Amino acid sequence: MALQQTGNWLNKYFPISIWLNNYTKEDLNGDIFAGIITAILLVPQGIAYAMLAGLPAQVGLYASILPPLIYAFLGTSRALSVGPVSIAAIMIASALSAPEITVLGSSVENAIILAAEGGLILLIMAALRMGGLVNFISHPVLTGFTSGAAILIIFTQIPHLLGLSKNPCGIELACYSSYFQHINTYTAGLALLSLTLLLSFGSPLASLLNQFKVKKNIITGISKCAPLLTVVLTTVLVRFYQLSEDQQVTIVGEIQSGLPEISFSFLNNMAQWKALLPSASFIAIIAYVESVAIAKVTASLRNQKINPNQELIALGAANLATAFSGGMSVAGGFSRTMVNFSAGARTQMAMIIAVIILSVAVIFFTEQFTYIPKAALAAIILIAILPLVKLREIITTWKYDKSDGIAELITLLGVLTLGIEEGIALGVIITILSFLRRTSRPHIAIVGKIKDTQHFRNIKRHQVETWENLSLIRIDENISFANVSYILDFIEDEAIHNSQLKHVILIFSSVSYIDTTAFEALENLINSLKKQHILLHLAEVKGPVFDKLKQTDFLNHLSPGKVFFKTIDVVETLAD
Amino acid sequence: MALQQTGNWLNKYFPISIWLNNYTKEDLNGDIFAGIITAILLVPQGIAYAMLAGLPAQVGLYASILPPLIYAFLGTSRALSVGPVSIAAIMIASALSAPEITVLGSSVENAIILAAEGGLILLIMAALRMGGLVNFISHPVLTGFTSGAAILIIFTQIPHLLGLSKNPCGIELACYSSYFQHINTYTAGLALLSLTLLLSFGSPLASLLNQFKVKKNIITGISKCAPLLTVVLTTVLVRFYQLSEDQQVTIVGEIQSGLPEISFSFLNNMAQWKALLPSASFIAIIAYVESVAIAKVTASLRNQKINPNQELIALGAANLATAFSGGMSVAGGFSRTMVNFSAGARTQMAMIIAVIILSVAVIFFTEQFTYIPKAALAAIILIAILPLVKLREIITTWKYDKSDGIAELITLLGVLTLGIEEGIALGVIITILSFLRRTSRPHIAIVGKIKDTQHFRNIKRHQVETWENLSLIRIDENISFANVSYILDFIEDEAIHNSQLKHVILIFSSVSYIDTTAFEALENLINSLKKQHILLHLAEVKGPVFDKLKQTDFLNHLSPGKVFFKTIDVVETLAD
Repeated sequence: MALQQTGNWLNKYFPISIWLNNYTKEDLNGDIFAGIITAILLVPQGIAYAMLAGLPAQVGLYASILPPLIYAFLGTSRALSVGPVSIAAIMIASALSAPEITVLGSSVENAIILAAEGGLILLIMAALRMGGLVNFISHPVLTGFTSGAAILIIFTQIPHLLGLSKNPCGIELACYSSYFQHINTYTAGLALLSLTLLLSFGSPLASLLNQFKVKKNIITGISKCAPLLTVVLTTVLVRFYQLSEDQQVTIVGEIQSGLPEISFSFLNNMAQWKALLPSASFIAIIAYVESVAIAKVTASLRNQKINPNQELIALGAANLATAFSGGMSVAGGFSRTMVNFSAGARTQMAMIIAVIILSVAVIFFTEQFTYIPKAALAAIILIAILPLVKLREIITTWKYDKSDGIAELITLLGVLTLGIEEGIALGVIITILSFLRRTSRPHIAIVGKIKDTQHFRNIKRHQVETWENLSLIRIDENISFANVSYILDFIEDEAIHNSQLKHVILIFSSVSYIDTTAFEALENLINSLKKQHILLHLAEVKGPVFDKLKQTDFLNHLSPGKVFFKTIDVVETLAD
Repeated sequence: MALQQTGNWLNKYFPISIWLNNYTKEDLNGDIFAGIITAILLVPQGIAYAMLAGLPAQVGLYASILPPLIYAFLGTSRALSVGPVSIAAIMIASALSAPEITVLGSSVENAIILAAEGGLILLIMAALRMGGLVNFISHPVLTGFTSGAAILIIFTQIPHLLGLSKNPCGIELACYSSYFQHINTYTAGLALLSLTLLLSFGSPLASLLNQFKVKKNIITGISKCAPLLTVVLTTVLVRFYQLSEDQQVTIVGEIQSGLPEISFSFLNNMAQWKALLPSASFIAIIAYVESVAIAKVTASLRNQKINPNQELIALGAANLATAFSGGMSVAGGFSRTMVNFSAGARTQMAMIIAVIILSVAVIFFTEQFTYIPKAALAAIILIAILPLVKLREIITTWKYDKSDGIAELITLLGVLTLGIEEGIALGVIITILSFLRRTSRPHIAIVGKIKDTQHFRNIKRHQVETWENLSLIRIDENISFANVSYILDFIEDEAIHNSQLKHVILIFSSVSYIDTTAFEALENLINSLKKQHILLHLAEVKGPVFDKLKQTDFLNHLSPGKVFFKTIDVVETLAD
C-alpha cells in the first residue's frame, strides 16, 4: 500500500516514471530516429530564435539543453519539444528593447531574469492551482495573437533576408525607396537559395519520394533535414567565396563554445526583477498556453492525456532551468514538436537523445557555426512561422460568431499597432467584456405545453398550449449580478402587458447558481409582484439551488407562492 | 399619428411630460409640503457636502439649484432628489487632493471639470447604451464600497466635531494622545448639542408625537427639520457668545451671495481634463449606480418604473448643468431622497418647489450662513452617513455566498487602506474574476430516468434508471472558452472509467450558446471519442443553438452520432 502510494506520487509529479516503466525496444527505435531528426533542427532554430530575441546565439543553444531534459522528467506530454520558440522570442525582443529596461543591465542578464521570473510565476500558478485562468485566453484571441506576432516576426526578418540595416522608415512610405536601394544582392541570393531549399524539401519532395515508395518515416526524416542542409550549404558558400569579408554578408559570428555554466548571479538584481515582472508574466502565460495547446493536439492524436497543472510545474521548472544555465525563456514550440512527433517520437526519450546530440555539437562544433549567414537563419524562421499566420480563420470565426471574430481581428490589429503585450491584453479584455455582455442578456423563453405530452417548449418556436392566468418563464442561465436586472425587466414587462396574469412561474431547470445580488433582487421582485396581486412560483429547482434557498427565509417571502418539482405540476395546480 | 409619435418621443426623453399631463391638486399638495421640507435640508447639506469635498460653501449650494431642475425634466424617478451627495463629495476630495492635480489649477476649477467630464461620460454611456455595464458593480461590492466610504467620511469629520486641526497622526498611535489634547471644548460642546438634537428628532420624537396622534406627515415634517433647527440654534449661540472670535470655534465664513453665473471658462483646460479623467469616470459611475439604486427602491414602493438609460441622460445632463453653474458633481442622494419621499413628494414638482425656496435663500440670506459652526455641519454629515455603514451585512452575505462575502469585505478594506477609487476597482475586479472562476466550473450532472416517467434527473440526487452503454450528461451552462476544458475533462474521464460505454449523450437543455472556442473543442472531442469507439450525440438542443450548428459542418462531424429532440428518444433508440 505504501509502495503504491509512492508510485502514485511518483507518477503524478514525475510522469517520466509512467512511460519508463513500460518502455519497449520499439519505443526506443522510434525515439532514436526522432531524436536525431529533432537534434538537426535544434541547432539552427536555437541560433535563429536567439537572433530573433536580439540575443547572442549561445543563449538560444543553452535554452535547448537543460530545459527539454527537465521537461522530459516532469512533463505530461510525450511529444512536446521544449526549447526557445518564435513567439516567446519576439516577446523577449520587445521586452528587452524598452528604454526603461535597457538602462538596467545587459540584455543577456535581462533575458535570464525574464526566464527565471516566468518560471517562478508558472510554479506559483501551479501551487495556487490557477492553471484554469489561462482558459480566459480564448481560441480566437490566441489565434489572432499568434497571427499578429508571426506577421511582426516576418517583418523583423526582412532586413536579414535582404542584407539591409534595421528598417528606419516606419510608416513613412517615401523612405522605403531609398532604403531598398541598399539591398545586398549576395545576402538576398543566399536567402532565395535557402527559401527554395526549405520549400522544396516540404511537400514537393515528400510526394516525389512517396511515388518511389520510400518508407514514410524516411521521407519525414529527409524532409526535416532541410534546415540543416540549408545552413550547411549556405555556410559553405559563405566560407568558400569569402562572402562575409568581401561582400558584407552578415554572419552569426563567434559563438562561445562548451556547455553552459550554472550561475546564480541573476538572483540579486531586484530593480530588474521588478521592472521585468509584467513582461515576464505575459511571456510565461503565453508560453504555457501555447505549449498546452500543442501538447493537447499531439496527445489527442495518440489517445493520451495532458494534465494542465502538472504542465505548469514542468514548464515552470524548465524556465528556471534555462535561467540557471544562461538560456532564454522556453516553451513547447509548434514546429519543433511537429517535427519530433511526425518523425515518430514515442516518448520524451526522443528529446533526451536530441539533447545529447545537441550537447556534442555545442561542445565540439561551435566554431563551424561562426560563418552561418543570418539570411539562412531568417529564411528558416520565415518558413517555420508562416503556418502560424491564419488570416482566413478570422473570416471563418466571424461567420460562426461575430463577437469572437471581432475579438480575433482586434487582437491581431492590437499586436500589430499597439505592441505584443498590449495586443494580447486587449484581446483578453474584449473577450471578457463581450462574455459579460452576453451573460447580461440571458436567453429567457416563455414556454407552453406541447399537447398530449408533459413537455414544455418556447412559445415562439413550437405550437403549444398556454393559459391566460399563468406566465411560465424559463430562465436559461445562472442568475447573478450580471444578468438579474435584465431578467427582472423581462418579468416586470410580462406583468405589465398581461392584465389577466395571476401567477408568474420561473422555471429554474437551467439555473444552478443564484448570487447575493440576484437573490436580493428576486426577494424585491416577489414583493413588487404581490403589490400587483401576482404570485411568484418556482419550478424545477435544482438540488444545490434549493438547498441554498432553504438556508435563508426566501421560501417564507415566496409564500403563498410555491416551489413545484415539475412544470406539469404547476399547470395541474394553477391553470384556470 | 404624427402627433402620437411626438408624444412618445416627448414622454421618452422628457418624462416630466408624463406626470405633468395628469397632475392633480392632490399631487400639488403633497409636493408643496415635501418641497418645503426638502428645501430646509438642502441648505445645510449643500454647505456640508461642499465642506466635505474641500470646496467653498457656494459650490455645494449652486449644485443644489440647476441640477435638480434639469433632473426634474429628464429623470424617470419621481422622488429622486438630485444634488451634492456625501459619497461623491469624499471622492471629489480624494481626487482634488492628489499632488498631480493640485498643481493644475484651483480646486473649484478642478471640481467643475470633474462634474463636466462626469456628465459627458454618462451621456456617452447613454449614447452607446452602456447602462448595463454598471450591473458589474454587484450589490455586495456596492455595499462594501459605501460602508468603506462612509467610515472614511466619519473619520474626516472627527476634527471638525472636536475643533482640531487636520489629523497628522496616521497610524502612529502614540501621536494621538498629544493630538487630542488640543480639543476645542466649545466646538465639541456645539457638536454634542447638534448630535443630541439630530438624534432625538429622529424616532424618539416621532414615536412621542405618534402617541399624541399627530398626523403622520406633520410628524415627518417636524422630524426632518432637525438639521435646520440644529444649524439655526448653533449659529445663534456662536453669534451671541462670539464663539468664533473669542473661542476659535470654526465657522463656515463668508459665502458669495446671489445665484450662480453661467460660465464656459472651464472648457479650455485640456491638461486638467486629461488628468481628471480617471477620477471623473469613477465619480460619474458611482453617482449613477447609487442614484439608480435609490430611484429603484422608491419607484418599486409606488409601482413605478425607472429607465436606466434615460437616467444616464438625466444625470449626465444634471452634471453638465452643475458644471456650467459653478457647482460640484451631483447624484441622487440617499438621505435627501428619503426625506423628500417620506415627506410625501408625488412628483419632481416637489424638487422644483424646493429649488425655488433654496434660490430665495441663496439670494437673500447667505449672510446669515457665515456664522454656521462647522461642528454642526459635521454632525449633520455624521447622522446622514451612519445608516450607510452596514458592517453586519458582510456576515449575512458571507453566510449566503462566501465569494460574495469576500468581495464585500475586500472592497471595504480596499477603500479604507488603498483609497476610494482603488477599493471599488478592486471589488469589481474580484467580482468579475470570481464570476469567471465559477463559470469555468459549470454544474454538470449525469442523469438517469425516473422510473415510469419521461423525466431525467441527477443520479446523485434521485433514484433513477441507468444503462451501461449510455452516459447521459446534462451540461447546465452555456459552453464557452471559460468552461469548455472543464466540460471536456469531465466527459473524457467518463469515457476512461467506463469500459462498456458506447454512447455519450450531451443534454443541451440548459445550453443556449456555444462560442467558437467551445465549438472547436467539441469537434475535437467527437474525433477523440470516435477513436475510442464511442459516439457523441446531442439531445434537447435549443432552437438558436441548433440553427448555429446547422450553419457549420458540425452535424457531419457528429454523424453517425445524432441529435435527439427529447432525452427519452435517446433511451428508446440506443439503450441496450
